[in-house]
Amino acid sequence: MKQLDVCLTPELLHLHNLSNSIVVVADIFRATSCMVTGLAYGVKSITPVATLEECRLLQERGMIGAAERNAKKEEGFQLDNSPFSYMADNLIGAEIAMTTTNGTLSITKAKATAVKVLVGSFLNLGALANYLRSEVYDVTVLCAGWKGRPNLEDTLFAGALADALQEQFMLLEDGTLMAQRLYQESRHNLLASVANSSHVRRLQRLGIQKDISYCLQTDLYDIVPVLRGGKLIAMP
Amino acid sequence: MKQLDVCLTPELLHLHNLSNSIVVVADIFRATSCMVTGLAYGVKSITPVATLEECRLLQERGMIGAAERNAKKEEGFQLDNSPFSYMADNLIGAEIAMTTTNGTLSITKAKATAVKVLVGSFLNLGALANYLRSEVYDVTVLCAGWKGRPNLEDTLFAGALADALQEQFMLLEDGTLMAQRLYQESRHNLLASVANSSHVRRLQRLGIQKDISYCLQTDLYDIVPVLRGGKLIAMP
Repeated sequence: MKQLDVCLTPELLHLHNLSNSIVVVADIFRATSCMVTGLAYGVKSITPVATLEECRLLQERGMIGAAERNAKKEEGFQLDNSPFSYMADNLIGAEIAMTTTNGTLSITKAKATAVKVLVGSFLNLGALANYLRSEVYDVTVLCAGWKGRPNLEDTLFAGALADALQEQFMLLEDGTLMAQRLYQESRHNLLASVANSSHVRRLQRLGIQKDISYCLQTDLYDIVPVLRGGKLIAMP
Repeated sequence: MKQLDVCLTPELLHLHNLSNSIVVVADIFRATSCMVTGLAYGVKSITPVATLEECRLLQERGMIGAAERNAKKEEGFQLDNSPFSYMADNLIGAEIAMTTTNGTLSITKAKATAVKVLVGSFLNLGALANYLRSEVYDVTVLCAGWKGRPNLEDTLFAGALADALQEQFMLLEDGTLMAQRLYQESRHNLLASVANSSHVRRLQRLGIQKDISYCLQTDLYDIVPVLRGGKLIAMP
């Protein structure tokens, strides 16, 4: 039987053997929720990069640059890290280069050894689960966390995916068990559950409550973003 | 107000600033439960060491050597890692050198920068909480985990301590919040809660169910083990 495992932060990724595993990266507030939204609205590709410099370079070469650090847009870039910014008409068919505090670093770390890298969020949870059921590989959910530490919202997403896949996958490790229990306990009110988390307090100070509510909606989009040749695209 | 923070595995300890913090190390199954039991029963001191070689050296110099790897006693050492072995009359007044898969490594890691290193378990939860309330320092609960990964039983202990101290300490970080929620959900039946955890399955294969039940009992002993000059002693 296939296994599903949860890695609570990229700082622990070296403890996971990814050689037979698809990695699902989750940075719920807000990088991967933005990626899913953009690709669902017709963005052609999103190139995740680890540094501001790479992002700037790609912007100079004609891509649309999106750069966030510490939950704020960096100066000199065209796009911010709010999912509502990814619904714009001028982004249909566009190529985006993106760097964020946690999410894009997780993607660049995972791609070194994983069979395949997908991007997950509550917005495309059902589509992801369906796709993973159809594959032969194990699954590792990589929570982006916050600056190396685990966070609540990404753990809840990992728990939601584990919960959806528990009939088809073995859930053996304690990290997985803990994520699933935290999700089960709060599945009926995710918004209340994250209200006290450190990142939500951080985002609320920036006045982006509506982003939080949006990112906690389940199954808005039927797409699975996959990394191909360094670019995230909607799986055909 | 003082802060209480939870570090889910020693692999994440570098992300925690310990310069104003007392560290409470927890390796519930079974290292720290053994330490608390031994010191409560009259062991004079326990010297935690990271390697088998150091432990062997100290045994040759007259200490009682206790060495465990992968939940089993290592050959050539006098003592194993079952708390019941620490209740023996011949250990009263004895000096023990101990090395375990996860617990002693966490202690040696923490002592480099922490204000003070204490040892925690459910067995001395109340005594620990009372002592920490009386101190001026922040608290970091360091879960020993399993080979770098978080585990359920140490996380539950961290949650229990956070829960006991929530009136006197701020609980700001998500790791702390998650530990507390997991504890609150299972406080009334810890044994059932850990029944499915990876380490309990591992221990059950070794036939040590009674160790598990023992280590989940709360407030058997009114002692606080503290590291002084490389040795754990019961705080006077």
